[in-house]
Amino acid sequence: LTPARMVQIEQDILSANNRYADDNRRYFGERGMLALNLVSSPGSGKTTLLTETILRLKDALNIAVIEGDQQTARDADRIRATGVPAVQINTGKGCHLDAHRVGHALESLNLPEKSLLFVENVGNLVCPSAFDLGEAHKVVILSVTEGEDKPIKYPDMFHAADLMILNKTDLLPYLDFDVEQCIRYAKQVNPKIRVLQLSAKTGEGMDNWLKWLRAELDLQGIGYA
Amino acid sequence: LTPARMVQIEQDILSANNRYADDNRRYFGERGMLALNLVSSPGSGKTTLLTETILRLKDALNIAVIEGDQQTARDADRIRATGVPAVQINTGKGCHLDAHRVGHALESLNLPEKSLLFVENVGNLVCPSAFDLGEAHKVVILSVTEGEDKPIKYPDMFHAADLMILNKTDLLPYLDFDVEQCIRYAKQVNPKIRVLQLSAKTGEGMDNWLKWLRAELDLQGIGYA
Ligand SMILES: Nc1nc2c(ncn2[C@@H]2O[C@H](COP(=O)(O)OP(=O)(O)OP(=O)(O)O)[C@@H](O)[C@H]2O)c(=O)[nH]1
Ligand SMILES: Nc1nc2c(ncn2[C@@H]2O[C@H](COP(=O)(O)OP(=O)(O)OP(=O)(O)O)[C@@H](O)[C@H]2O)c(=O)[nH]1
Ligand SMILES: [Mg+2]
Ligand SMILES: [Mg+2]
Ligand SMILES: [Zn+2]
Ligand SMILES: [Zn+2]
Repeated sequence: LTPARMVQIEQDILSANNRYADDNRRYFGERGMLALNLVSSPGSGKTTLLTETILRLKDALNIAVIEGDQQTARDADRIRATGVPAVQINTGKGCHLDAHRVGHALESLNLPEKSLLFVENVGNLVCPSAFDLGEAHKVVILSVTEGEDKPIKYPDMFHAADLMILNKTDLLPYLDFDVEQCIRYAKQVNPKIRVLQLSAKTGEGMDNWLKWLRAELDLQGIGYA
Repeated sequence: LTPARMVQIEQDILSANNRYADDNRRYFGERGMLALNLVSSPGSGKTTLLTETILRLKDALNIAVIEGDQQTARDADRIRATGVPAVQINTGKGCHLDAHRVGHALESLNLPEKSLLFVENVGNLVCPSAFDLGEAHKVVILSVTEGEDKPIKYPDMFHAADLMILNKTDLLPYLDFDVEQCIRYAKQVNPKIRVLQLSAKTGEGMDNWLKWLRAELDLQGIGYA
């Protein structure tokens, strides 16, 4: 396996993935759905953010979740406990979700028009950045416990995301985390990135996230040709 | 690219890596060195644990560090500030260190016999589990902020590690983290895993870690043929 051959293989994998991602994007577009790809380190609070979001929105919106994990159905179980449908994908050795498996999960969900679909990726701040799932946006969740330098040390993910959520702000009094520096680092890697600060645990800051979701969902219905 | 072809490619990559890992292992063995591969999610506290460890041991032992990150030389700079040599490897798009690049870093370090070498891997709880670097042990660091279920959701890494360090125990009063349940999960995946609890920030629990390091270093000199 020469380096050139390796690059070729990676391109083949990514372009096969991109074709499936385009299928998913068409599926979402035709139905006016908003699909978001939640990416982060393990344990940044993706599932907690989702269950807290669902509890606040499920009476008003159709919501569903696709969960990616190496093993267990714990996250899908946590979602289903809120009363919303969830499909668990177990990747085994795999370190990221791909568009093909997400497409099959979509078939089994069979969602109504204008649904809000969350895809929670495998916790991994590196590999999922390269795999388009057909989503409208990647949303990167960074826990303030992880340190402010993550955007410059793991830049591909922060470059790929349109929104960064700084989670676990309830812990800031016990940490040395510099919020402003973290935001500067994120913008250094991605000048267009938006930033929200919240605590999924206490609910502080959730309002702006809910507003963003509703506005993005409204946008999906407009101008799809 | 058929699935069978993909499996073949993965096997080729891993077996090429294993040959380099064997070279590294021979290098460590001949010099009575202890090499440890520190693996974790981004931000669990690997570099903080290293700088705190080095400050306590550098007068008694020869220590060096190989740092793996997608980008920046921040972690190597933090190590060098303690007065110990460090080599930074930037993986770019790559999600893990491989034995080949570690071998080249060893050449440039040119360490004395009986050295203690730490390799800090890219923060990633999935991919580095499959890549042997020739180390004596993988040490997995789990921050208590990440939740107790990480061992069963990301099992390959906890299966591959011989020691799990539960870090950031100073934050336990502000979390719902169930330490006993976490240890049960880790042992479910790897019945032989050892567990240490500590706070790299306050220094609480560091004594057992330092004892473990000294005992493991003593072991390396014995019986290498
Ligand atoms: N203090 C605090 N803890 C939180 C917050 N959000 C999540 N957590 C805790 O963080 C840990 C991980 O939360 P999860 O929601 O499972 O994180 P995740 O990103 O879904 O984890 P994986 O799917 O395993 O990668 C749990 O112990 C949560 O209770 C928060 O806003 N504040
Ligand atoms: N409260 C607390 N914070 C800690 C502890 N150890 C590390 N931290 C903090 O956790 C954040 C990440 O620490 P690092 O040492 O950079 O973590 P890392 O695993 O080396 O991070 P990467 O190399 O980027 O994956 C920093 O803000 C540290 O100050 C601890 O024991 N307690
Ligand atoms: Mg989760
Ligand atoms: Mg580090
Ligand atoms: Zn990957
Ligand atoms: Zn990977």
